Amino acid sequence: MAQNPARRTALTDAAIDVLAREGARGLTFRAVDAQAGVPAGTASNYFANRDDLLNRVARHIHHRLTPDPAVLAELLRAPRDRALVTALMHDLLRRITAERAGYLAMLELRLEATRRPGVRDQLTGTIREQLEANIAYHLDEGFPGDRETVVLLYLAMTGLLVEHLTLPGVLGEDGLAALVDTVVERIVPLD
Amino acid sequence: MAQNPARRTALTDAAIDVLAREGARGLTFRAVDAQAGVPAGTASNYFANRDDLLNRVARHIHHRLTPDPAVLAELLRAPRDRALVTALMHDLLRRITAERAGYLAMLELRLEATRRPGVRDQLTGTIREQLEANIAYHLDEGFPGDRETVVLLYLAMTGLLVEHLTLPGVLGEDGLAALVDTVVERIVPLD
Repeated sequence: MAQNPARRTALTDAAIDVLAREGARGLTFRAVDAQAGVPAGTASNYFANRDDLLNRVARHIHHRLTPDPAVLAELLRAPRDRALVTALMHDLLRRITAERAGYLAMLELRLEATRRPGVRDQLTGTIREQLEANIAYHLDEGFPGDRETVVLLYLAMTGLLVEHLTLPGVLGEDGLAALVDTVVERIVPLD
Repeated sequence: MAQNPARRTALTDAAIDVLAREGARGLTFRAVDAQAGVPAGTASNYFANRDDLLNRVARHIHHRLTPDPAVLAELLRAPRDRALVTALMHDLLRRITAERAGYLAMLELRLEATRRPGVRDQLTGTIREQLEANIAYHLDEGFPGDRETVVLLYLAMTGLLVEHLTLPGVLGEDGLAALVDTVVERIVPLD
């Protein structure tokens, strides 16, 4: 397989845009080539098959949705209290809103996972690891709350993000920041 | 347009199965006709266009996901306390798990709404009304908690259902009932 890393990243980014815009069924090697503006046949040199492409897309979205290390370091100078958890959730909302195509592509991958066991197994592994890493981090750093606190925060923020990114008028743009505050207040203990 | 109500319902049910199995992009009049086992051209006599079909599908899913009145009446003989909210959330999980295709089709419609303003406006109206009705019901019936309690419960259960129906291995089947208990315990006050 071809090995130019910049080209592979450009093709994976193009696949994310195709997924968000056309849905999982629109994701073909031909559509990825067209979106990336490369000659037809290029993507097939970089990915073994469609499942390989989908799995690389999942890992790349995970990478694109990771916090900016500089922003995170600045936030983490504060004490490990509820206010810091609130600041981290606002940063999450900002990042996902900025990476809208990536989050929508991840929802497309979730639906594709219901149809393709290979995608389901890979994606389950990726999301489980990420959730377990979040739980371990929360507890190790001494943030308030326990394992269930992190799981509930994950579920409520997932619900909020799915609603906000697919039907923004349901929760409304105006009250969204206040709703993030409420989510943290009601789920995370004060200390 | 043709007016046989049973035929229209059968076509709408077929559209839900096509959406869940093939994704939004696979939803064509031709695919609906094939899924329903009716002559090609039938669906086009029942729906003005594809957006009309999508909007009717959304309302029909909403209808299919509504609680069974007999089950609900039996549950509602209990006092309006946290235990009853827990029982209602377990009933919700049971219904959605039984109506898996309907819930997956609704996720497909949410993603289609990001691409089609007509679908977005209709679906936003439907989901907003439903959320406001849930809030009003909770407060009118004297269940514990306030408006934010219901919104948070809605967000956390949305996160749980999206996770459970698309990647069941992330939360696991075994701990799922206990997780519903935890969601209610942490979000809904005791009385």
